[in-house]
Amino acid sequence: MKAENTSDFNRLANIFNAWLKPQVSGSAGGLAEISSYTLQLPGKRLRPVLCLAVAEMLDVKLDSLRTPCLSLEYIHVYSLIHDDLPALDDDSLRRGQATAHIKFGEAAALLAADHLQAQAYKVLTSDRSIPAETRLAVLDTIAKASMDLCEGQLLDVSAPKKGTFEQQLAELEKRHSLKTGALIRAALSIPSHFLPELERAAMQSRLEEFGHHFGLLFQITDDILDVTSSEEAMGKDLSSDEERGTPTYVSVCGLERAQELAAESANLAKKSLSEFGEKAGFLQSLCDVIRLRDR
Amino acid sequence: MKAENTSDFNRLANIFNAWLKPQVSGSAGGLAEISSYTLQLPGKRLRPVLCLAVAEMLDVKLDSLRTPCLSLEYIHVYSLIHDDLPALDDDSLRRGQATAHIKFGEAAALLAADHLQAQAYKVLTSDRSIPAETRLAVLDTIAKASMDLCEGQLLDVSAPKKGTFEQQLAELEKRHSLKTGALIRAALSIPSHFLPELERAAMQSRLEEFGHHFGLLFQITDDILDVTSSEEAMGKDLSSDEERGTPTYVSVCGLERAQELAAESANLAKKSLSEFGEKAGFLQSLCDVIRLRDR
Repeated sequence: MKAENTSDFNRLANIFNAWLKPQVSGSAGGLAEISSYTLQLPGKRLRPVLCLAVAEMLDVKLDSLRTPCLSLEYIHVYSLIHDDLPALDDDSLRRGQATAHIKFGEAAALLAADHLQAQAYKVLTSDRSIPAETRLAVLDTIAKASMDLCEGQLLDVSAPKKGTFEQQLAELEKRHSLKTGALIRAALSIPSHFLPELERAAMQSRLEEFGHHFGLLFQITDDILDVTSSEEAMGKDLSSDEERGTPTYVSVCGLERAQELAAESANLAKKSLSEFGEKAGFLQSLCDVIRLRDR
Repeated sequence: MKAENTSDFNRLANIFNAWLKPQVSGSAGGLAEISSYTLQLPGKRLRPVLCLAVAEMLDVKLDSLRTPCLSLEYIHVYSLIHDDLPALDDDSLRRGQATAHIKFGEAAALLAADHLQAQAYKVLTSDRSIPAETRLAVLDTIAKASMDLCEGQLLDVSAPKKGTFEQQLAELEKRHSLKTGALIRAALSIPSHFLPELERAAMQSRLEEFGHHFGLLFQITDDILDVTSSEEAMGKDLSSDEERGTPTYVSVCGLERAQELAAESANLAKKSLSEFGEKAGFLQSLCDVIRLRDR
């Protein structure tokens, strides 16, 4: 991972963190304080960074993406809180610290996440700096991704343990396309809603293709890290998929083939942005950052 | 309860049920099927009925309230599914049938409700029959009510068991104003967003006042029914508040005073709509329907 890419990632993540800070520190008491706890954990901020990176590529003003980025991260974090609950993954560690239900109790964590999902829409509905039609298009994209994400989580807890190699691979791809891919694709597509309608369609089909391969890449490397990384580096309980017997790219294809698949996805993702030339440099380099990450 | 009022209530509930039916029957498999199970249980449809009754009072076309009413009911039903979970009320009966987590398991019920909350926004964002600014105002109202509802549910599980009479009454009013009142007030206020801006403000302050008293009335009678009705009539587990020691209007004020408070709230609610004359007839009569209901 080149220093230049890291600094670009951090630059965009810091822009987002500055937007997040007043939201998080301003919440005293009640459910907002509980979701703030999870929001302020040192996350990668991948979805906001992807959204901002596309905005730079398309020459869309970064400031106009403030509430869409907050909304994306709220949806992501609400889903993490629910995913960690005993009824789902039953995880006690998240980003190196106690998960919300361990710290605040199950009822409060469940409700704080519900509250945060509503807030993901509220932060957008009331942002009058974004034209009404654009705001609705962004809201629609995020609500659809949030629905898909839930479907993916259901597949995660009900994934068939057996099947042919092809069936297992198809099931893996569908599950991850919904669970992780949907919100990543939403993040990538949002900036194009700020473009004039005529330019939008062409951009969106390129970005969808990138999003498809990038989402896969992200999930395959996640599965690889689950067996090769340490809990300390990842800041969460590892191998829980393995313990539950949920198929992963590593359990279905083996470690070596999973690494090949990750490299293939990275190449296809990079290629899908070739027409953007130099402007796609950061997003293309990000594919290698994700492929070679250690957490 | 006069036959005329019942038939008006049923007429509006049936309009809503006809809108709900294709949504519910069209969902095969996945999370939508699970939320459809709870959506199709024979609920009162109070929030859609209130919304449609105000629309009639203000001469707003009922058809334009289709997606707002669906959204209100989706939020209500998602919150019921979460409220029934073991981490919250741990109820096994809802509207006379097994609750979602009893029928489908905790993980699936939790996720289906999350999915339904997202759908409550999605159904509105994509309804192009409503002008963009109006759609955003309705979305904003519903997202805000959904956030308040979660805060109210948190107070419900963390309500202080002790305090002076005045403290307990203030706590009860705050808790219910958020838990039940917020979505009821949202339902009542939505039709006014379809009016020209100049007419809107005056209408909204009247409707807020009505909503405040009507919400209280609804909750006080709910607390009364919890001790006077049968599980068979209510179709849910009764006295769970009493078992948990959560203060209710009956436990704090006694049954007789609670009945007086219900009558006072009904009178104040009716009075707040007096300037609408005959057009407020159904909403005013509904106050007595709610006060004298047996489920």
